[in-house]
Amino acid sequence: MDKISLVFLGTGNAIPTEKRNHTGILASFAQENILFDCGEGMQRQLRFAKISPTKITRIFITHWHGDHMLGLPGLFQTLAMSNYSKALHLYGPKGTRRFIQLIQELLMHININIQVHEISSPGTVLETSQFKINAGEMSHGTAALAYSLELKEKVHLKKPAIKKLKLPNSPLLGDLQRGKDIIWKGKKIKAKAVTYKEPGKKVTIVLDTSFNQEAIQLAEDSDLLIAEATFSSQDAEKAREYQHLTSSDAANIAKKSKSKKLIITHISQRYEHIPHIIEKEAKKIFKNTKIAKDLDKIII
Amino acid sequence: MDKISLVFLGTGNAIPTEKRNHTGILASFAQENILFDCGEGMQRQLRFAKISPTKITRIFITHWHGDHMLGLPGLFQTLAMSNYSKALHLYGPKGTRRFIQLIQELLMHININIQVHEISSPGTVLETSQFKINAGEMSHGTAALAYSLELKEKVHLKKPAIKKLKLPNSPLLGDLQRGKDIIWKGKKIKAKAVTYKEPGKKVTIVLDTSFNQEAIQLAEDSDLLIAEATFSSQDAEKAREYQHLTSSDAANIAKKSKSKKLIITHISQRYEHIPHIIEKEAKKIFKNTKIAKDLDKIII
Repeated sequence: MDKISLVFLGTGNAIPTEKRNHTGILASFAQENILFDCGEGMQRQLRFAKISPTKITRIFITHWHGDHMLGLPGLFQTLAMSNYSKALHLYGPKGTRRFIQLIQELLMHININIQVHEISSPGTVLETSQFKINAGEMSHGTAALAYSLELKEKVHLKKPAIKKLKLPNSPLLGDLQRGKDIIWKGKKIKAKAVTYKEPGKKVTIVLDTSFNQEAIQLAEDSDLLIAEATFSSQDAEKAREYQHLTSSDAANIAKKSKSKKLIITHISQRYEHIPHIIEKEAKKIFKNTKIAKDLDKIII
Repeated sequence: MDKISLVFLGTGNAIPTEKRNHTGILASFAQENILFDCGEGMQRQLRFAKISPTKITRIFITHWHGDHMLGLPGLFQTLAMSNYSKALHLYGPKGTRRFIQLIQELLMHININIQVHEISSPGTVLETSQFKINAGEMSHGTAALAYSLELKEKVHLKKPAIKKLKLPNSPLLGDLQRGKDIIWKGKKIKAKAVTYKEPGKKVTIVLDTSFNQEAIQLAEDSDLLIAEATFSSQDAEKAREYQHLTSSDAANIAKKSKSKKLIITHISQRYEHIPHIIEKEAKKIFKNTKIAKDLDKIII
């Protein structure tokens, strides 16, 4: 069964602490290693996590505030020095092309092939036969997106049934997998009878934003919702002022989107020694909540 | 007696390792906290060293390669968020103004007052009554400088002698300190007889460069020479190719400049588990050599 492995490469907010680096989440499945946001120090966090940066296939940036992107230039440089020969697909909100151009100038033009995909409208921004990534518009005072990653449902053949019917390896098998009934030796074979479905997987990442309905829609039925909670719900006014979520906001998005699990990240340094209060507040609303630590790994 | 306290905030080279961050050296004395180079992750390294970034008074950049400057944007941002109200004086080689402009654009213009001093010719680039900073041109394929920091010699009055002569607090004392003999109650008082000298201090920082004579001149009579040695002397060809120093080059600069002590930094990841070979090679040429580790502190 296909799984999504997630590594929390940084779980702090704008000012890093001894325990929490700036934001970065690596999602790995099949041939993909997708980095969501790339705060300063990311290449070293990858080193601590014993993950080669050259494995990265795509980068999605939620928004162009420093703590979500200042690890990009160093990462690009290390990829160039490591002879990274693939095209690096980089996705982000409006302005992404300009920011990548500035980074290229800052680095005196490095030798890697960066393919920029500037996302101008929400919806499906990447789709293959295996997976789909949707973006939703967030509210953070600058162009900001949240992303959901869906591994698609798979249809498998029931091997014993196929064997019993003596069906040969042929396009007929593909028809059955696509749900099409077939005729074999004058007999109708129903697709439903000889196939079974492996359900898809959905992980949604909602970073810097005020509480909003689009986050709930984007996260609908997620197996895992990763959401920022920069502030405790006791500091809700500050959260509104800086357009961030509180612990309760994150839990409410999890609850209303009918997500199965919530992991909270992007914790302000003010809670460096009391992160449990964030977790406790969220759990009151959504029980299956955990707070992320740097280098935590989870498999969905 | 005035001392210079130095903290090695990063001792790695272009690719950071688990043990070594990108380059940064903080020199503190009197009211000054001067950061020499600012590689990625510097604000977090400061956090690990328990040094507030707002203490920084000046930044000197040796050259604009990423591993020496990619910590600047994050540091600027953190200073802005910490209401840093001083002018931040930033010095660097040709191109510095343009690079700071690019960083400002990348950060969407942050609210701190950065005073850029672009150094167009070597020599004294900063001088106060207390200290002096000289720059020397290095060879690294891009505009690159090395810096020496000199605390000036101080002249103190011999208090018992002054008391005995019943010299009052007056401009006459200043004359004596400046080495001028005076007449007091019809009697000549020699400055030399009633003053003593506290010697100055000199620390020279030679980072990325090929071996060159200007580094030796700049480092002349240093109490401490901090020099890069990206490569072992067994990899001298690579050092020449990439315009870096070997362990032996660093030791030769220390020896020929008559420096008192050598600390080696900017170690390539290839020696992550064998840094002692770098130290051993250098010691053959210059005995008083140490290899720096991240967060090492030394007082000169």
